[in-house]
Amino acid sequence: MRLLLMSNGSAPGGEYLAHAMSTLRELLAGVDRIAFIAYAQLGLEEHTRVVAAAMAQLDVELVGVHRSHRPASIVEAADAVFVGGGNAFRLLAALHRYDLIDPIRAAVRDGAPYLGSSAGTNMACPSLRTTNDMPIVEPPTFAALNLVPFQINPHYPATEVMGRHLGETRDHRIAEFLEENDVPVLGLQEGSWLQVDHDRARLGGVAGARLFRREEAPVDLKVGADLSDLLTTLGTFDSPGRGCDDRGTR
Amino acid sequence: MRLLLMSNGSAPGGEYLAHAMSTLRELLAGVDRIAFIAYAQLGLEEHTRVVAAAMAQLDVELVGVHRSHRPASIVEAADAVFVGGGNAFRLLAALHRYDLIDPIRAAVRDGAPYLGSSAGTNMACPSLRTTNDMPIVEPPTFAALNLVPFQINPHYPATEVMGRHLGETRDHRIAEFLEENDVPVLGLQEGSWLQVDHDRARLGGVAGARLFRREEAPVDLKVGADLSDLLTTLGTFDSPGRGCDDRGTR
Repeated sequence: MRLLLMSNGSAPGGEYLAHAMSTLRELLAGVDRIAFIAYAQLGLEEHTRVVAAAMAQLDVELVGVHRSHRPASIVEAADAVFVGGGNAFRLLAALHRYDLIDPIRAAVRDGAPYLGSSAGTNMACPSLRTTNDMPIVEPPTFAALNLVPFQINPHYPATEVMGRHLGETRDHRIAEFLEENDVPVLGLQEGSWLQVDHDRARLGGVAGARLFRREEAPVDLKVGADLSDLLTTLGTFDSPGRGCDDRGTR
Repeated sequence: MRLLLMSNGSAPGGEYLAHAMSTLRELLAGVDRIAFIAYAQLGLEEHTRVVAAAMAQLDVELVGVHRSHRPASIVEAADAVFVGGGNAFRLLAALHRYDLIDPIRAAVRDGAPYLGSSAGTNMACPSLRTTNDMPIVEPPTFAALNLVPFQINPHYPATEVMGRHLGETRDHRIAEFLEENDVPVLGLQEGSWLQVDHDRARLGGVAGARLFRREEAPVDLKVGADLSDLLTTLGTFDSPGRGCDDRGTR
């Protein structure tokens, strides 16, 4: 599998995808057509136009899967898949509604590069559970594409004060996730990405990341960090009722 | 129905529940026992202790529903219900798991005051869809207690710059909700609450609120604002596929 899982679409202050262009060019060598999944945003055509314009110099054709009555057929006919950002709940609901989960997984396992940005990066994880987005629609399940065995939190704040979400910091929110689930969470700062090439994973881009594990101190990571070990993670998503003496009758 | 729906547990910088004590005293006149629902947090006993200590001066008994093998029995035996804050997904999952939805609704309809703080305020709405929390566990449905026919967003930032959530402002997130659902959203600043007394609703506390409706400019509200009209709202929760020319095959 080859994955490029971007925190978001740009480096802070930069143009859309400009920070990733040389990496995209390398990853997409030999690719003629990319299936683009725009469902995270309301305006599907506008979203597709913006991404197509940013990728124009790469000499690839970007086709929105929403253009077909059977969106999976666009995935099946493409050489790569790009899932754009927006609202992760809206996106996951659409992936299930249009029966795109299995076709995307099959394409990626057969060698098609998977590019994700923000909500599109959330989708590569086992679950939606570490999105920052508001649950504006209700997907049939939180289960996502499960291309990697750990969770990613996109838009991870570079300085904690910026992540204060009135009430809670981002780190507090991720700590709550780890109370319920024993699965590592990679917080990707804006401008950073995780690149996976078969059994190798590496932090790329122009910003860092922070790795959270249950009952361990978080670890700050710099561009170039080798994260291949994460690909063999054996995590456990728990129901809320995992053992805890303080939980009364649970 | 009598509801006290607090944005959070305290005024900025104040002690837990101190800002609401005189209102609580009035609302709880004649109440001997409050069923406390602590499930939004991991430590059920600690959560209950904190709230009981804050309410000690009110001369009411606070009983955690988690103390019973049948949590609903505590609700049924109490004169009021208090749902505390924490993670709204964890809370809603527990309300469904312990079959508390119908017993709470019945108690409140029979006259028991309902007190909610943060996630507990989210629960009084038709749906979880305007929580700020991370979806760390998966509830069986987003449907909540539906005690009021509109949505509340707690911890609504007093100044927009504070609400920037790396990527999106709070207002942007609420706008996304309104793209998918035609239901008003009341953003309650920290320290504010909505008090409902049968067919009357009024903004209380020490801070303001902002009311959002689809295709209307948001309206800023001050303490004392009469929001009774909201109680007769006829909103519509839409699936992501509501009509839009730009949505391709949807």
